[in-house]
Amino acid sequence: MIRPSLGVRWGAIRAYSKLTAEHYNVARGSYGSIEQSDLDFFKSIVPNGVVTDASDLEMFNEDWMHKYRGQSKVMLKPQNTEQVSKIMAHCNARKLAVVPQGGNTGLVGGSVPVFDEIILSLANMNKIRHFDPVSGVLTADAGVILQNADDYLRTQGFIFPLDLGAKGSCQIGGNLATNAGGLRLLRYGSLHGTVLGVEGVFATGEVFDGLSSLRKDNTGYDLKQLFIGSEGTLGVITGLSIICPPKPNAVNVAFLGLESFDKVQEAFVKSRSHLAEILSSFECMDASSLKLASHHCSLQAPLSDVHPFSVLIETSGSNSAHDEEKLSGFLEALMEEGIITDGVLAQDETQIANLWYWREFIPEASTKAGGVYKYDVSLPLPAMWELVDATNDRLIKQNLVGSTDEFPVVDTIGYGHIGDSNLHLNVAVRRYDDRVEQALEPFVFEFVAKHKGSVSAEHGLGFQKAHALHYSKSEHMIGLMKALKRHYDPNLILNPYKYLP
Amino acid sequence: MIRPSLGVRWGAIRAYSKLTAEHYNVARGSYGSIEQSDLDFFKSIVPNGVVTDASDLEMFNEDWMHKYRGQSKVMLKPQNTEQVSKIMAHCNARKLAVVPQGGNTGLVGGSVPVFDEIILSLANMNKIRHFDPVSGVLTADAGVILQNADDYLRTQGFIFPLDLGAKGSCQIGGNLATNAGGLRLLRYGSLHGTVLGVEGVFATGEVFDGLSSLRKDNTGYDLKQLFIGSEGTLGVITGLSIICPPKPNAVNVAFLGLESFDKVQEAFVKSRSHLAEILSSFECMDASSLKLASHHCSLQAPLSDVHPFSVLIETSGSNSAHDEEKLSGFLEALMEEGIITDGVLAQDETQIANLWYWREFIPEASTKAGGVYKYDVSLPLPAMWELVDATNDRLIKQNLVGSTDEFPVVDTIGYGHIGDSNLHLNVAVRRYDDRVEQALEPFVFEFVAKHKGSVSAEHGLGFQKAHALHYSKSEHMIGLMKALKRHYDPNLILNPYKYLP
Repeated sequence: MIRPSLGVRWGAIRAYSKLTAEHYNVARGSYGSIEQSDLDFFKSIVPNGVVTDASDLEMFNEDWMHKYRGQSKVMLKPQNTEQVSKIMAHCNARKLAVVPQGGNTGLVGGSVPVFDEIILSLANMNKIRHFDPVSGVLTADAGVILQNADDYLRTQGFIFPLDLGAKGSCQIGGNLATNAGGLRLLRYGSLHGTVLGVEGVFATGEVFDGLSSLRKDNTGYDLKQLFIGSEGTLGVITGLSIICPPKPNAVNVAFLGLESFDKVQEAFVKSRSHLAEILSSFECMDASSLKLASHHCSLQAPLSDVHPFSVLIETSGSNSAHDEEKLSGFLEALMEEGIITDGVLAQDETQIANLWYWREFIPEASTKAGGVYKYDVSLPLPAMWELVDATNDRLIKQNLVGSTDEFPVVDTIGYGHIGDSNLHLNVAVRRYDDRVEQALEPFVFEFVAKHKGSVSAEHGLGFQKAHALHYSKSEHMIGLMKALKRHYDPNLILNPYKYLP
Repeated sequence: MIRPSLGVRWGAIRAYSKLTAEHYNVARGSYGSIEQSDLDFFKSIVPNGVVTDASDLEMFNEDWMHKYRGQSKVMLKPQNTEQVSKIMAHCNARKLAVVPQGGNTGLVGGSVPVFDEIILSLANMNKIRHFDPVSGVLTADAGVILQNADDYLRTQGFIFPLDLGAKGSCQIGGNLATNAGGLRLLRYGSLHGTVLGVEGVFATGEVFDGLSSLRKDNTGYDLKQLFIGSEGTLGVITGLSIICPPKPNAVNVAFLGLESFDKVQEAFVKSRSHLAEILSSFECMDASSLKLASHHCSLQAPLSDVHPFSVLIETSGSNSAHDEEKLSGFLEALMEEGIITDGVLAQDETQIANLWYWREFIPEASTKAGGVYKYDVSLPLPAMWELVDATNDRLIKQNLVGSTDEFPVVDTIGYGHIGDSNLHLNVAVRRYDDRVEQALEPFVFEFVAKHKGSVSAEHGLGFQKAHALHYSKSEHMIGLMKALKRHYDPNLILNPYKYLP
């Protein structure tokens, strides 16, 4: 079963964002400036991979949500690790700042420059290097697009252990750099467990040759783990090896309507015992999410009524008869015990794709009016939708929400991965407005800190959350992180103004 | 289903080993020596936790295989993290060397001193701190014995994601420190994926407060990963949080006899498609392993004949009817296609326990004649038993193997985790003999390096393999590790003479 990828596309409304540096009043670091001799050197390393045309650079200077805009004058597109190494060694010697960039599908402004950082694009490093069908270990360049990796693996009877809405554009190296979680984490675990090896380049140009493909290797510190989730601040990921699960024979998807978030939690606890080893996704959406998606989509909604909460459950197993029996037993129990009000079970691949569409389209739908403020947080289950309600109330009280143009906010929506206690809180807006941002921050972060959650569950820190890190990490822990950063990147040239406060 | 724990017990034959420092001609580092004022300080911190009696220290100075023996004069038994912090701060200021010790069940001499290092025992830090039955997250002291953690979790409907033969003695902090793999890795993944948080104390006494219990938390570098597998060389693990899987409703175990290792590999590939999500163990033992176990065990062997290879397969699932159907379909296919010669399926918990006994008793059986040389390596599947045969041939050619007392070697055996490409090569001996060691090293390490395997799959480096690290890691990588060690432990007081060359 292959779901249609929504990818991440530039919205129809093209609103030039303000320069990040001006909007947030950031001072440029004491980095070198690019001179002709630097360009000459780069051209000697990557003759066809030096981009300096301003219009060509435009979409790489800006994130896809039009929230952050940098001022880079140069993008480099190396084709192999050796070129990356030479580029980094030069930049380190010249103290030129660099922002590594994958598919540029991030949500926190981590992959675009702030000032004139060199954009180091991995797009031309896009080869599958090796696949072993006995062990299921894939080795590939960092710039391989996730969808391409997954498509290739499916021809071999396997799947990539990670899946997410941006799969049509995002790159697997970027997925590692941001420690992406996505839709399959519940079943296949995090990248810290599935990634077996990382090849990378430190700020100094030193190559990190950690491309092991062994499932077990206890020879020394597991340094590759530091690259996972470091958002290009410790080194540039150029390749990876990862253990991939066999493609499931049977995939089933159900879409359920529920009256309350309490019922959602009851359904989740029940799914753990009834579906256990075949449960591969448990996604939740509130009524506002689904209404927003309906508004921008001509497809018929899965259920005739919009319920306060909708849940999408996916099972992936090896025996379709067994899986269907488990799933129908589970759904019957939910109906009998009054946990769900309504539900539909996909009968074929098209229906499966359509049900998934309603979950995966929500992030895109939230941007359709013009823009979106996105928060990605971990919270204890009971507090998850308290945050959505509290945010909504706050924006209404401040008179920021309405159906006409004078109000910046269209609606506040919540959706997320129940199995991982991961909520995506989105505030859909007609335009970015400082009053909305001020209403949201530090309100959202304080709510999360109060409930001992994480201010970034899976989307990372980037530019947006660098200064919110203290809501989830102690001063001491931040100090340890800064020390590690200096250890590997003494001139602090990699992805500056981001990640750490 | 609870299997009987074999634990790790001191052998009946008590052979004092040589002092590690003398046997391997190691020079003491320039550390401080313990004075009365140090003892006074320690007594002020842990009044009832300062052990100085030589006979009390004996079994903590030596590993259970009688291979390594240190000369510590002091063991400290703190009861909480604050005490560990004060002890470490003092030791760092005084440049006193420290070896953290859990259950002392390691196989590479990592948990015993070499000279007069202070033994820092975690045995008195043995409390379950918290368990959340909705998320399945356990938070506990590092000194909790693995069996106790698992027993507690079973009363809550969950299991610990790690299982291994030494569970009756080993401690969960030590499991993390050595990144133990064990019998369930195939199903539940490695500790890098299941551990959510680590609390630890650095050499300086600084507390590492990383005890997150969030499944997803992308706020900064994942520093806790550095503790996992660092064998007490970067810090002392004092607590941890870990995500635990639900206790499976149905557990089935089959024991199969096969004619060759090729057939074992065929059976493994088939198990991936037939058993898929319910396969929880795929363990292989050769004929010599089983003969050695039979020799020391009064229990009846599972199959009437000893086959060249035996395989133990375990499934763990939520629906016993489904699991039995999958398993019987799998076994029928194996018989029909001539992949297995004989097989038995456990009918009840006692039979399950008895079948597992044959796999878990092998490590202990290998020590019964007096001692054992143990190698734990990763190798590409086809090369796994080539190493066993080559080692056996080599020892025979050097006239070291025989059935009478004049020969040091009893037999060479192989067993391991097929799903993880992890072979345990054991040379059972009547006594430790330098000729055997010289025949084995660097032979075994060179074989592994030639086949791009790992010289330590799951048992770590400790004292035994510190100098073999270069067979699996480059000079550059070792340099990076040494730099990291200096970064966190500037006086190099934590677990010296180990881990790094």
